[in-house]
Amino acid sequence: VQDHGSHERECILAAVNLILIERTDFVGATRVCLRGRRLEHARGILRAEPGDVLRVGIVDGEVGSGTVVRVADDALELEVALGEAPPEASPLALALALPRPPQLRRVLQSAAALGVKHIALFHSARVEKSFWQSTGLSPQAVREQLLLGLEQARDTRLPRVDLERRFRPFAEDRLAGLSTGPILVAHPDASEPCPHALAGPATLVVGPEGGFVDFELERLAAVGGRMVGLGPRVLRVETAVTALLARLSP
Amino acid sequence: VQDHGSHERECILAAVNLILIERTDFVGATRVCLRGRRLEHARGILRAEPGDVLRVGIVDGEVGSGTVVRVADDALELEVALGEAPPEASPLALALALPRPPQLRRVLQSAAALGVKHIALFHSARVEKSFWQSTGLSPQAVREQLLLGLEQARDTRLPRVDLERRFRPFAEDRLAGLSTGPILVAHPDASEPCPHALAGPATLVVGPEGGFVDFELERLAAVGGRMVGLGPRVLRVETAVTALLARLSP
Repeated sequence: VQDHGSHERECILAAVNLILIERTDFVGATRVCLRGRRLEHARGILRAEPGDVLRVGIVDGEVGSGTVVRVADDALELEVALGEAPPEASPLALALALPRPPQLRRVLQSAAALGVKHIALFHSARVEKSFWQSTGLSPQAVREQLLLGLEQARDTRLPRVDLERRFRPFAEDRLAGLSTGPILVAHPDASEPCPHALAGPATLVVGPEGGFVDFELERLAAVGGRMVGLGPRVLRVETAVTALLARLSP
Repeated sequence: VQDHGSHERECILAAVNLILIERTDFVGATRVCLRGRRLEHARGILRAEPGDVLRVGIVDGEVGSGTVVRVADDALELEVALGEAPPEASPLALALALPRPPQLRRVLQSAAALGVKHIALFHSARVEKSFWQSTGLSPQAVREQLLLGLEQARDTRLPRVDLERRFRPFAEDRLAGLSTGPILVAHPDASEPCPHALAGPATLVVGPEGGFVDFELERLAAVGGRMVGLGPRVLRVETAVTALLARLSP
């Protein structure tokens, strides 16, 4: 594409199907004042002018419309009318061996876009210890990726993300509590193919790039984990997570 | 991650699960000489030394192992033993409204990794004309993304990619020939959810970001296209394509 500036704008425009508002953005009962990233977005990308109607949602709340009432250099004011429910949440929980940072960003976005509301990132023998030092794991960085996924999918409800830096206590004490359904462990050697269209909740466990070590597979089996496969193809973590969530979803 | 160099190496290492060899790389019946990108990869990333065994495959052919026999600055020689079949192909064909260039790269990679063997990129009213000028559409650029997807998934068989610059002749004359199965058109307003686990071939049609216009929906319906949905969530094109292919796959 020759017009790079236009292309950049299009990318951002395309990715934001909903402007997420924080409760602290309210300056009146139905009046919202946006600054920072969302102001820049609304002014620079959407070229918002008084009278324009934008699709908005409240973090962890309802969705609706926001009518632009004032645009200034430092703030954009919206009169909002909410009342619609965000899309239904996925009944699937995701337990994921901590991926390398660029993959983490993409997988947080796509899991949020797909409606997952509970994500546990856990350590495993084949996760590089240095991944736990990544700035991408700060609460702010994680939240930012989740918000991008929610805005993409027009959702408002932030997933909960647990950081589990020790495999064994996570697998033994907390994994079974992530959902009330079965624990399905994606594993290349599994003889059972990953099922389609589960009727209810489940926890999907996805290992690191190099796979689980035997000790870990034993611990997962001991808490009821069922090994399921996606065939002989090796997939990138974000592709595998999206494919597995889509198969399991009703 | 603090050690950026190591991280870069890991990323490349992780992405290449198979070294793809071209028929022109053969210098003897079972002797292969790698140069360029694959030489750099084998020397710099895999740190290949004589005696090492690498997983290899021939473009559009068999997979097997390659034993390093010589490493030099300008070439790496492998003695290859092939004979294994690559993973089974997907019976699904993909017809995709041409996405913006960065999304095109990712979607070509993931469709190739998921085993799709026939991809048609088509024009549609809401595809920006400038996308057709992208260098990412050159045969070489398309092939490079497909090879990355194949190497990721340990596949060898290159998908065929058709560029369809005019919607109507494509929809009316060629779409129905992409597979022998039903034509499923992903559409947000569809009342029928996208089915799970089709028994045989099918053609998945995915529109542009802004959706199809009415005229296009009529043309697709006229050739037997069935509208199917993925629920109210708006997904990025690569996430939507992966999710739809995974749902439809057996």
